[in-house]
Amino acid sequence: MDELITHTNCKTVANGTTSKVITCKAAVVYGPGEALVIEKIMVDPPKEMEVRIKILFTSVCHSDLGVWLGTNEAERAYPRILGHEASGIVESTGEGVTDIEAGDYVIPIFHGECGECIFCKSAITNMCAKFGINPMKRVMESDGKCRFWSKDKNPIFHFFNTSTFSEYTVVDSACVVKIDPKLFPLNKMALLSCCISTGVGAVWNTANVKPGSTVAVFGLGSVGFAVVEGARARAAANIIGIDINPDKLAKDVLREAFLSTHQGWGLTVLVGVHSTPRLLPLHPMELFYGRKLVGSTFGDFKGKSQLPHFAKDCISAGVKLDEFITHELPLEKINEAFQLLIDGKSLRCLIHF
Amino acid sequence: MDELITHTNCKTVANGTTSKVITCKAAVVYGPGEALVIEKIMVDPPKEMEVRIKILFTSVCHSDLGVWLGTNEAERAYPRILGHEASGIVESTGEGVTDIEAGDYVIPIFHGECGECIFCKSAITNMCAKFGINPMKRVMESDGKCRFWSKDKNPIFHFFNTSTFSEYTVVDSACVVKIDPKLFPLNKMALLSCCISTGVGAVWNTANVKPGSTVAVFGLGSVGFAVVEGARARAAANIIGIDINPDKLAKDVLREAFLSTHQGWGLTVLVGVHSTPRLLPLHPMELFYGRKLVGSTFGDFKGKSQLPHFAKDCISAGVKLDEFITHELPLEKINEAFQLLIDGKSLRCLIHF
Repeated sequence: MDELITHTNCKTVANGTTSKVITCKAAVVYGPGEALVIEKIMVDPPKEMEVRIKILFTSVCHSDLGVWLGTNEAERAYPRILGHEASGIVESTGEGVTDIEAGDYVIPIFHGECGECIFCKSAITNMCAKFGINPMKRVMESDGKCRFWSKDKNPIFHFFNTSTFSEYTVVDSACVVKIDPKLFPLNKMALLSCCISTGVGAVWNTANVKPGSTVAVFGLGSVGFAVVEGARARAAANIIGIDINPDKLAKDVLREAFLSTHQGWGLTVLVGVHSTPRLLPLHPMELFYGRKLVGSTFGDFKGKSQLPHFAKDCISAGVKLDEFITHELPLEKINEAFQLLIDGKSLRCLIHF
Repeated sequence: MDELITHTNCKTVANGTTSKVITCKAAVVYGPGEALVIEKIMVDPPKEMEVRIKILFTSVCHSDLGVWLGTNEAERAYPRILGHEASGIVESTGEGVTDIEAGDYVIPIFHGECGECIFCKSAITNMCAKFGINPMKRVMESDGKCRFWSKDKNPIFHFFNTSTFSEYTVVDSACVVKIDPKLFPLNKMALLSCCISTGVGAVWNTANVKPGSTVAVFGLGSVGFAVVEGARARAAANIIGIDINPDKLAKDVLREAFLSTHQGWGLTVLVGVHSTPRLLPLHPMELFYGRKLVGSTFGDFKGKSQLPHFAKDCISAGVKLDEFITHELPLEKINEAFQLLIDGKSLRCLIHF
């Protein structure tokens, strides 16, 4: 494993698996909140415009946790392979894929970029009509089918365009970004596929924080700390971290955050999935004091176009990635990684295969 | 009256009233929803940095209606002189006022500009720490007292920094804007002090609508039609007007408006006072589709700095003002003007003295 991380000249994967079904291990969820089961699964070859990736590192994020718990019934689908923050090496590519090839060091992205829809063609949004984040989506875009199946031939559902809790996964090429492996070893590169892009991007793109600003971060998980890193790199004068009782989070922290910003120009950026059914805890008149409230998805990055450059920016801005990885476990212990996150004991627990 | 409208060279008011208390007629409200009483009142001379204005035209706006009804108990104060959309001639000025003099053609503005607070000094907001719109404010800023009093010596409360349902009113100079009378006759000039600035400004400043845009206007009162005029002047390709049952307005029209905008870049601009106690009818996750929601106060204009120029822009952009004035009544019939608005039969009913 270490060799793959450091040996950046390697451009081929000794596989002999191209066009073949791969049997490999994955963590499969069978019901809401049920312990993930490590088992052998089958992974189809990539179809047209798809990419099969050998995942080397993945981690557990709160978005995995929410769907695993099945709080929102519409997001339930079983059996399913969760996971979206990861890095790996391309095993093979389907017909028509020209920007990625076997051996490339890549990250899968849950918020893809087809490059052809009205959103992708617009400079002012990173939405994508086909591959935007959607916790309810459970099949491949091209044919509405799964590329994973179990030994009894039943399909296993996909998740977040990525499904990285598997040794091999198939994703649409719109959701694969090639990252220069000279910039980051693959374990850290994984962080770019969710928490770093989401948090730093919320500061650099959505809020466009200027030097001397005051930034308050409500919720100090990995994304919260990535916001801190982004604000530090932008030379914010004051960075205030606030962490609270998770039970209160969706109820009124949003309100407290909003009202804590400066009248006239304060900006509140919402990041991440809010599974609460509650409405915005704000009165319409409270929008008349110059405070703004916006949502930020994937740090407002157009993933395929902008992430390779963002990776370089992280280096030049000195964004620290090391501290995010607080634990490391093999796939077999992924349920422990879930528990560490639930208990608030980890930032990122990296899973290796 | 007609002479005052057209005779724009007149720079003096034959008054002999400077520094004296003026006795004049006004429409006074004594209780929530009670018919306004036309009576003689006393108006003090302006104190330091204040201006006494002879009001020539005023009109009834929904904001007057809301406070008159006293829906929000915190906004109740009696006796009180309502009214904020108006035009007039300066009768006299208090010590220290240098930008305005007796005889000037002016409009009072409910959302003033002190020029000295952090908001006034910032280019990115039109808020003002001292003279921003505040329906609860009922006295003058400088000494916390009233300039109006009744024949039995009781004070009569102010409203919206303006109180224009009176033949004479005293306002802070931060809330008086001199308009070139060659641009508009005084009856139309009155519209600049609320509906035109609020509606056209929401389009030109807050939304900054570009040619070819689609603009939907929910609620076709005077401000709604001013939005239409602003959008037309900006060469919007499609302007859609939607009017609804007023009972539903605050409940879910805001939601319908927000969700009707385009994913990725749709902007909803809230204009006007929402007296409902209901929260925003949106789920936090609904902010993650690139739709934005902002409030706009007084069209995002810094009144004193920008309105004189905006008046010229209205002329050059061909903003039509005539159609807004659907009725005209003397002050004595102001209760009829309220009823016309309640019944949805008027846009602006102009009151003259």
